[in-house]
Amino acid sequence: MFRSVYLYTQSSNHKPWLPHPAPAAGMLKLLPEEHVRSLFAYDGIWLFPKNQCKCEASGHQGSYNFEDAYGQSDLPAVKVRRQAEFEHFQRREGLPRPPPLLAQPNLPFGYPVHGVEVMPLHTVPIPGLQFEGPDAPIYEVTLTASLGTLNTLADIPDSVVQGRGQKQLNISTSNRKLLNFILQHVTYTSTEYQRCRVDVVSLESKSSVAKFPVTIRLPVMPKLYDPGPERKLRDLVTIATKTFLRPHKLMTMLQSIRVYPDLTVIVADDSKEPLKINDSHVEYYTMPYGKGWFAGRNLAISQVTTKYVLWVDDDFLFNDKTKIEVLVDVLELDVVGGSVLGNVFQFKLFLEHSENGDCLHRRSGSFWPLDGFPSCVVTSGVVNFFLAHTERLQRVGFDPRLQRVAHSEFFIDGLGSLLVGSCSNVIVGHQPRSPVADPELAALEKSYNVYRTNTKAQIQFKLALHYFKNHLQCAT
Amino acid sequence: MFRSVYLYTQSSNHKPWLPHPAPAAGMLKLLPEEHVRSLFAYDGIWLFPKNQCKCEASGHQGSYNFEDAYGQSDLPAVKVRRQAEFEHFQRREGLPRPPPLLAQPNLPFGYPVHGVEVMPLHTVPIPGLQFEGPDAPIYEVTLTASLGTLNTLADIPDSVVQGRGQKQLNISTSNRKLLNFILQHVTYTSTEYQRCRVDVVSLESKSSVAKFPVTIRLPVMPKLYDPGPERKLRDLVTIATKTFLRPHKLMTMLQSIRVYPDLTVIVADDSKEPLKINDSHVEYYTMPYGKGWFAGRNLAISQVTTKYVLWVDDDFLFNDKTKIEVLVDVLELDVVGGSVLGNVFQFKLFLEHSENGDCLHRRSGSFWPLDGFPSCVVTSGVVNFFLAHTERLQRVGFDPRLQRVAHSEFFIDGLGSLLVGSCSNVIVGHQPRSPVADPELAALEKSYNVYRTNTKAQIQFKLALHYFKNHLQCAT
Repeated sequence: MFRSVYLYTQSSNHKPWLPHPAPAAGMLKLLPEEHVRSLFAYDGIWLFPKNQCKCEASGHQGSYNFEDAYGQSDLPAVKVRRQAEFEHFQRREGLPRPPPLLAQPNLPFGYPVHGVEVMPLHTVPIPGLQFEGPDAPIYEVTLTASLGTLNTLADIPDSVVQGRGQKQLNISTSNRKLLNFILQHVTYTSTEYQRCRVDVVSLESKSSVAKFPVTIRLPVMPKLYDPGPERKLRDLVTIATKTFLRPHKLMTMLQSIRVYPDLTVIVADDSKEPLKINDSHVEYYTMPYGKGWFAGRNLAISQVTTKYVLWVDDDFLFNDKTKIEVLVDVLELDVVGGSVLGNVFQFKLFLEHSENGDCLHRRSGSFWPLDGFPSCVVTSGVVNFFLAHTERLQRVGFDPRLQRVAHSEFFIDGLGSLLVGSCSNVIVGHQPRSPVADPELAALEKSYNVYRTNTKAQIQFKLALHYFKNHLQCAT
Repeated sequence: MFRSVYLYTQSSNHKPWLPHPAPAAGMLKLLPEEHVRSLFAYDGIWLFPKNQCKCEASGHQGSYNFEDAYGQSDLPAVKVRRQAEFEHFQRREGLPRPPPLLAQPNLPFGYPVHGVEVMPLHTVPIPGLQFEGPDAPIYEVTLTASLGTLNTLADIPDSVVQGRGQKQLNISTSNRKLLNFILQHVTYTSTEYQRCRVDVVSLESKSSVAKFPVTIRLPVMPKLYDPGPERKLRDLVTIATKTFLRPHKLMTMLQSIRVYPDLTVIVADDSKEPLKINDSHVEYYTMPYGKGWFAGRNLAISQVTTKYVLWVDDDFLFNDKTKIEVLVDVLELDVVGGSVLGNVFQFKLFLEHSENGDCLHRRSGSFWPLDGFPSCVVTSGVVNFFLAHTERLQRVGFDPRLQRVAHSEFFIDGLGSLLVGSCSNVIVGHQPRSPVADPELAALEKSYNVYRTNTKAQIQFKLALHYFKNHLQCAT
């Protein structure tokens, strides 16, 4: 009996999976679990399939169990609702994916293993189909599809090929070369309209069956931006920010931006009173009072019409080290953070799957240096001073449910969608937290600080949101 | 010589592709091109791979060549810029995809054809690997990867397995069962951090080579919404609209919405003067004057915190046939349009690929009925009265570059990302275009009508945008 406790094929009642019995007991054994753990761990996290993932506090790494954010009496109903929403989401995304399609050895067929794609309702030739089995008086080969129909471009009578334009194509001939000619020119026509589906097409003769995937999908429509004939920074980059009850800081920040005299700045403001801003390159938006931090961020980025957007907080300060052009060069990534007053805050995110919610692990630092950019590294999350591809940033977005303090939630939402980097050589300043003389401004700041406090209720709200929205179980 | 002019393997100087010479000339021939065209046409459009696509006007179908939107002197530079932006986009999306991976017949291996996926930096077992070739004194099998490293869970000395944790794993043994035990437990560890890449892993022995794909990607992070314990419509649906210089129409529309007393309504307004709206469930946003139609639409949807969003225009009129709940049921699709005063405007979109830009074909009507919903059909574009999955709608977005008249551009941007349906049994009313008595409102309406006119300059702008942004060549 072999212990394969950690393999993903384990049955649900945790009986070990038994491979074929060993001829010479003792020869065929697997590495002990601790060894496997050490082989496949990264930053101390075991990144290997398992039934259950766990979040264990260790050293100065805390851990949160997101269920704890709910009251005991609410939790059962929440679990049911989350499961229902998750299943709806999975259905629409075509998840979970079916188990891998395995090819048997010694199949007498040539066929395309990977890479046949067709747009919905379109037709493509299927490359690589051939039969190289033993000679026989009659060759009978059948092709079967589910989400489309089959045909062949070969000009052949119905006595040889039957089922043209149907889900099953039957070829029957004594002429081997004719058989291969027909196979060479088989076509697949997609008959479903879906975002992304995989049809498994089978090719069989006698008892040999080859199966291969045909991917049905429309390619994502490009959304390109014209940089203009002179490639001016103004046509490439828009600056975006959100402000709340800090008009003095905002104005100071806006003035400091004018080392770049004509860059458009988008300002989302959910303060009580609207501001009058005398700058023809500032686009100003007002929101319901206190609508929120991420709502304002999402608003601001929704208005950008250039390829790149530079996010800044309303209390930053541009200086001569704030070279936006340097960040533009690094945009093979999706988001590139800079440094705020010398602080290159970075963190990595790791995800482990599990049936009742994923485990998320956050570690400070970066994965590795970025090729070709000595001051930059690849990571998962950065500071609030970053340049981003507008299109990719908008696709992830800032969740307007996050009204007060929030930061890493954006990078968690972006996990899998955003490639993030961090460069220490582009630096923005930060206005000091000195108290204001003006009594009106001081009153606003006092109000601001109340909203800005990360209260217990807010922390609980955010943990509950991670539990439900991101289908997470826990985090370290 | 066989004419295969229409096959995608045609060389660039348009010489026909020659398959193997025919043994019996006259037996191996392909269907004539006209026959193939009729087999694979949909709505009169030939949906088959070709080098060049064309947009031909026919009947009452016009055609546009998007290059014509540019001045003759500008066009060469625009072409260069578009090609550069397109290549940047392709690089970042991993396009164009490599040609299909073909399996040769009679490979002595079992292996996974499709479906092996691994998250970046994670490890997975590779299922299905086996060797069933002829007996031999020594079996030497090599596995090679490029974007990751290989290992095996088998507890085996280095004399048998070399290269553990490297890109190439060599197995050398005289024991066939041991070989297969090792293969059965091979693991793949991803060592790159990318959004989505496919590694081709090869498995060879003597002259036999099997190749199979391993997909490296992080799954998209779920963004679920809690419908709450009572599943109230208010917690499921937010209404969104944009208004400009039509306060009277907006107010009439808002009042009619109150058949639903507590649904949140988001209003984006880029008029000159802000409005005061006495409705605690209306969220009101102001924008720079005349910032634009799609900018306002993108703003409004960026603020939604519920699972679904209902888009309405500011001159609609809710009545007793406006049953939002009916649309909620149909949301296996992403966007479901209703009917405006009995008009179920629908259109289908077809895309043909081509090297110098795609051809887009638009036809009125629908693809087919929607299973289970007798009043609904599947299509590509609908009216401006629709319910949508907030998350999917935000991922496509409304392009803020479209300031004035625009409609189908949203559905074109959404091609491949949105599944669209249309239901005739949910009807909203439309306020009549009668002139206003009040002189102030009349002045606003006059202004509105100027902005609303689809001028020649605007049409040209939109055609140019299709050329550059969507990499289109022409449309019918």
